[in-house]
Amino acid sequence: FFRRGSSQANAISLPRPHGKSFAHRSELKQAKRIVVKLGSAVVTRGDECGLALGRLASIVEQVAMLQNQGREMMIVTSGAVAFGKQRLRHEILLSQSVRQALHSGQNQLKDMSVPVLEARACAAAGQSGLMALYEAMFTQYSTCTAQILVTNLDFHDEQKRRNLNSTLHELLRMNIVPIINTNDAVVPPPVPSSDLQGVNVISIKDNDSLAARLAVEMKVDLLIALSDVEGLYDSPPGTDDAKLIDTFYPGDQQSITYGTKSRVGIGGMEAKVKAALWALQGGTSVVIANGTHPKVTGHVITDIVEGKKVGTFFSEVKPAGPTVEQQAEMARQGGRVLASLLPEERGEIICRLADLLTEKREEILSANRRDMELATASGRLSQPLLNRLSLSTSKLNSLAIGLRQIAVSSRDSVGQVLRRTRVANNLELEQITVPIGVLLVIFESRPDCLPQVSALAIASGNALLLKGGKEAANTNKILHQLTQEALSMHGVKDAIQLVSTREEVEDLCRLDKLIDLIIPRGSSQLVRDIQRAAKGIPVLGHSEGVCHVYIDSEASIDKAVDIVKDSKCDYPAACNAMETLLIHRDLLRTPIFDQIIDMLRTEEVKIHAGPRFASYLTFSPNEVKSLRTEYGDLECCIEVVDSMQDAVDHIHKYGSSHTDVIVTENEETAEQFLQQLDSACVFWNASSRFADGYRFGLGAEVGISTARIHARGPVGLEGLLTTKWVLRGEGHTVADFSEQGSMKYLHENLPVPQRNLS
Amino acid sequence: FFRRGSSQANAISLPRPHGKSFAHRSELKQAKRIVVKLGSAVVTRGDECGLALGRLASIVEQVAMLQNQGREMMIVTSGAVAFGKQRLRHEILLSQSVRQALHSGQNQLKDMSVPVLEARACAAAGQSGLMALYEAMFTQYSTCTAQILVTNLDFHDEQKRRNLNSTLHELLRMNIVPIINTNDAVVPPPVPSSDLQGVNVISIKDNDSLAARLAVEMKVDLLIALSDVEGLYDSPPGTDDAKLIDTFYPGDQQSITYGTKSRVGIGGMEAKVKAALWALQGGTSVVIANGTHPKVTGHVITDIVEGKKVGTFFSEVKPAGPTVEQQAEMARQGGRVLASLLPEERGEIICRLADLLTEKREEILSANRRDMELATASGRLSQPLLNRLSLSTSKLNSLAIGLRQIAVSSRDSVGQVLRRTRVANNLELEQITVPIGVLLVIFESRPDCLPQVSALAIASGNALLLKGGKEAANTNKILHQLTQEALSMHGVKDAIQLVSTREEVEDLCRLDKLIDLIIPRGSSQLVRDIQRAAKGIPVLGHSEGVCHVYIDSEASIDKAVDIVKDSKCDYPAACNAMETLLIHRDLLRTPIFDQIIDMLRTEEVKIHAGPRFASYLTFSPNEVKSLRTEYGDLECCIEVVDSMQDAVDHIHKYGSSHTDVIVTENEETAEQFLQQLDSACVFWNASSRFADGYRFGLGAEVGISTARIHARGPVGLEGLLTTKWVLRGEGHTVADFSEQGSMKYLHENLPVPQRNLS
Repeated sequence: FFRRGSSQANAISLPRPHGKSFAHRSELKQAKRIVVKLGSAVVTRGDECGLALGRLASIVEQVAMLQNQGREMMIVTSGAVAFGKQRLRHEILLSQSVRQALHSGQNQLKDMSVPVLEARACAAAGQSGLMALYEAMFTQYSTCTAQILVTNLDFHDEQKRRNLNSTLHELLRMNIVPIINTNDAVVPPPVPSSDLQGVNVISIKDNDSLAARLAVEMKVDLLIALSDVEGLYDSPPGTDDAKLIDTFYPGDQQSITYGTKSRVGIGGMEAKVKAALWALQGGTSVVIANGTHPKVTGHVITDIVEGKKVGTFFSEVKPAGPTVEQQAEMARQGGRVLASLLPEERGEIICRLADLLTEKREEILSANRRDMELATASGRLSQPLLNRLSLSTSKLNSLAIGLRQIAVSSRDSVGQVLRRTRVANNLELEQITVPIGVLLVIFESRPDCLPQVSALAIASGNALLLKGGKEAANTNKILHQLTQEALSMHGVKDAIQLVSTREEVEDLCRLDKLIDLIIPRGSSQLVRDIQRAAKGIPVLGHSEGVCHVYIDSEASIDKAVDIVKDSKCDYPAACNAMETLLIHRDLLRTPIFDQIIDMLRTEEVKIHAGPRFASYLTFSPNEVKSLRTEYGDLECCIEVVDSMQDAVDHIHKYGSSHTDVIVTENEETAEQFLQQLDSACVFWNASSRFADGYRFGLGAEVGISTARIHARGPVGLEGLLTTKWVLRGEGHTVADFSEQGSMKYLHENLPVPQRNLS
Repeated sequence: FFRRGSSQANAISLPRPHGKSFAHRSELKQAKRIVVKLGSAVVTRGDECGLALGRLASIVEQVAMLQNQGREMMIVTSGAVAFGKQRLRHEILLSQSVRQALHSGQNQLKDMSVPVLEARACAAAGQSGLMALYEAMFTQYSTCTAQILVTNLDFHDEQKRRNLNSTLHELLRMNIVPIINTNDAVVPPPVPSSDLQGVNVISIKDNDSLAARLAVEMKVDLLIALSDVEGLYDSPPGTDDAKLIDTFYPGDQQSITYGTKSRVGIGGMEAKVKAALWALQGGTSVVIANGTHPKVTGHVITDIVEGKKVGTFFSEVKPAGPTVEQQAEMARQGGRVLASLLPEERGEIICRLADLLTEKREEILSANRRDMELATASGRLSQPLLNRLSLSTSKLNSLAIGLRQIAVSSRDSVGQVLRRTRVANNLELEQITVPIGVLLVIFESRPDCLPQVSALAIASGNALLLKGGKEAANTNKILHQLTQEALSMHGVKDAIQLVSTREEVEDLCRLDKLIDLIIPRGSSQLVRDIQRAAKGIPVLGHSEGVCHVYIDSEASIDKAVDIVKDSKCDYPAACNAMETLLIHRDLLRTPIFDQIIDMLRTEEVKIHAGPRFASYLTFSPNEVKSLRTEYGDLECCIEVVDSMQDAVDHIHKYGSSHTDVIVTENEETAEQFLQQLDSACVFWNASSRFADGYRFGLGAEVGISTARIHARGPVGLEGLLTTKWVLRGEGHTVADFSEQGSMKYLHENLPVPQRNLS
């Protein structure tokens, strides 16, 4: 568990000449010894100079949690000044009011003001209260604390440094959380300034450099420096171009422009970066983050330790590849060129990719074998998942066939004119199809997704970020290389990027400035997680497929049995498999009912009874817990309804608007059902399993959507397109069309070339 | 500020026979005296029995804030048991380990267990620590606290009750927050149970009834009872049909089904409801809410006081109309019938509404005059807003004309076949247009929105919830009545509902189970607020319109001047007005440049210089703060670019993808611009002001969308439609198409009736 080979707990040494900090955020999970530095903005309230109790409590909770995981936690805190100021102010007001009471009649009460409080006095007065508060809070987590007061000078005295070092090690050994503060009462008098937000206070030097010194001295793995800034920006925050730097490398320092007026003078950004770089050079990884943001405070420390993209991470090791933000930018640029190619050129790229899948079959299958071996060895994947991971010559062949179909349909996608209007003389409007922009496709296990989704993106002129599962890393890598090889033939290699498996899905879902649409392909759980995590980016897909088959009183026996069998048993784990069978009341105890039940028994389908169905039976199977269950297995619910209308109501109430089926010979009943039912797919006398892009003749699908806007049902190429409006005039102005103007709106529809929807 | 006429602070009386609680959540803002009751689940952590410090700190913060607003706050708390248990457990473990150390060798260390702790002892041991914690926390907000220990029995003794009452009044008078707990040490011994989540503890009666008694005794306006349940459900939570009750009326009590196994025995839901009804009868309003939910804890108390829909509100006064949830349900039902009408019938309804606007002109204008008078008297609306609020005969006439146009286009909306495919023999697939579902349109000031949006909803078969501004309440009311009158002719009156002005927009945006699409019509701020508040519901619209006009080196002088003038000055507040003028470098100090500047000066447009433009000038106007500014006034930014390509890059970087214009005589340059630029509307030699549904010939618009999926640019009828897939077979199953099956996919495109896009 210790990262460094032989960490000698009590060794006293100067900062190592060149320690080894973590190269990537994902490694921060391994941090054993952590210092959390709380800037004064974190510990004190924003409006006044009292302590921000809720924030402190949450920080204590996170530190205690990490401590309970077996990590060695230290806190470097501010706040004694604020605590003491609150206290001293109160004392002064009291003594003033007593004095004024003695001079009553002079009516000076209104003018009563608090004099400038000396920071060192405040700190001394506040230190005891602050420690008592920390102790009371940590006690709730059965965690002991210890107070350490130091000055920067203490580090210069070899003896003091050695004593401090061994004291801290001893405390950590006993699972005690040292809480370290500067011993302000004995430092030189500070200069007055208006640093802290309360005005009548003299600030003291922030504790950035103290935390950095301590981190290096104690060979700390990770220093988390919390203040009220999000992290390090490449330009002064608030300017047009300012971007938060996710990972900062020491060599990049010259690329930063610091603001001329840093809001916090001492302890400002430059000082923070200096301290961070010092710690980094000493072998400690550093993250600078905002500890005051109300939404993230609750998790900021644990999120950082879990490797999430919070604040700015300082790393000495510059990774070989581009960051995901750079990849998204490259993809967008490449995508714009891709969209401007001729349709035939996009088709050629897809055909070339299809060829490569055959030509490079051996390389692909060998990479896939490596993934399969690793997955089998780890034993983490179930047999169905292993099947999905595995590629074969026949899988590659059918993939190539599918790709060639997409190449054909790609001819009529981008740049199609959907509508043409003559708005006025010489003013013509067109609505044309354009790509959506940058797509992020997140897929699990199945590496055959990669060329399929890539082909759809190429056909629709979209840029694409691909995020595959770790288990298919080798296969995905070679398939992506082949895709880029195909793209290169028209100079758009960058339009499709493979995102490192190290990137967290949750972090990607937050890149709303870079990504236009997320398409998750995987389990319902994956989809739900992504829907929750996506901030301002639409997610195409569905998280539930509670599909119904309704057997009407006028159903044909054969069709009913066949459709129920196909809908439930063909592939029970599919989202378009039947979950609930609705049976018309009149059919109970008729041959059609008996045959369906017999078939389900033969197929070993476990039956759950809906409440009404159960009430009809003497010996009922298990009653369902919920009528909204997606079993995803050889299980289903059976419920009784009074009529077609009753079935529609049931489906509206308990269904997920995915795919629902009626089996009946009565055309009128069927048409009523098809009309009334508000689902993405409504079928008459056909299996629910037909809800699929390929079976619908869309060539391929990126998924099935149960959203009500944009694409609905199986989504093919068209779901990856949006439109733009192009208006061509001759200097037309709106004023020309006013009552006094010379022009009139014509709004004549002009013929549009018929689209080929194949 | 006191709600009740003459609240005699020291009057001692039995609970008033029938006090007057608040009728609606929106009145809770007026609550002067508030009791916050913290159940043990709120005060203690979920996993163990320590205190939940973060939660407590946040509660203290909210209570202190409300206290500082001049309200009289009281807290009824639990938690002493948990605090004491933590402490006693520690003591016991210590003494046990000492004992075991004396008997070493018996190796009993593993079996060391904590005996059942008597709750009363725990409470006594914990009370002092709990109070110290509250005091430390409240001190941070300069708020004093006082401890009160009572038993339920104290209320039965007239003398004790009188003493308690006057003590509490005295404390409130001195701005002290009384913190009340049951005096558990002196109550009868409780029965053992496993109520609290820690197992080895004997629970004590929850403090629901204590809080209710106290509330009535102290004539409290509002009792906020926080526990770990969301509120009151109509069925046991977790069952399929369980719905959280927003507002509960005493008469509704029989409609509740309590769960057979309430998780928390004593202090369970029935007891909470009983206590709440008791308080309500005594004149205190009650809200039961979850105080443990991590996302809302930070605001739960202040949100309740601000009237937001949190938990269950107990009210004695049942409002006349339906709740907004009921309205949404009625609208959905009505909408389904509306969608199933014939297109001509929907057209008839719209024409009838157009007729009514003329027939009932006098009533409408008179209602509008009342709104205008109220608005003028209040002085809260600026002149432009007053103009938007005001209706006139001519406005009504052009409204009626617009409606008749919508009626015509409504013929080709719902049920249009977009695609037909013969999947196989006798298996036919259709993709048809269907309504989106339930729309929520939120609009400010302009009451003419109401009939317009209603007509679009009717034409597209959508249900509609309308939420207008308070300032137009009278006008909206009559316009909505007329809409319902028109809808009645085909029995679909309920499809369009007017939401009470009392409902908070933020609450409506959370109704993701009831609403499918939100369309805000109003200021950018309104749109941004709604985008932020909408949880899981798509929002159609745009929050920014940073539109550019680029003057190419080959532009015509006349066209350039006309287009810049129209784009900026025709209606500067519009979202499609120009904000940034990009000028080709070669044009600087040419006649075209001078004429544009002269025109802008004449029109009194304030000019801001982009950084490059400023660098070319000796005496530059103000340099822009940001190149992304939407001025929305007679102001604009001017910047210099090197080329068309440079202009495209600038717009991609700083624009909002709304509408951007090129002025040039070079067709090739123009087509490049139109092709490359990634905005919803791209124009050549035409004013940006043409970006508008009516000017585009869409008949009317619900707004302009800058989203990349679904509708983009001006959105008319089509943006209110989605599709569903209808498959008609003869018992087809997917198995028939397997390798062993008898059928083959044909995927033949069948002719589709050409849509009339007028």
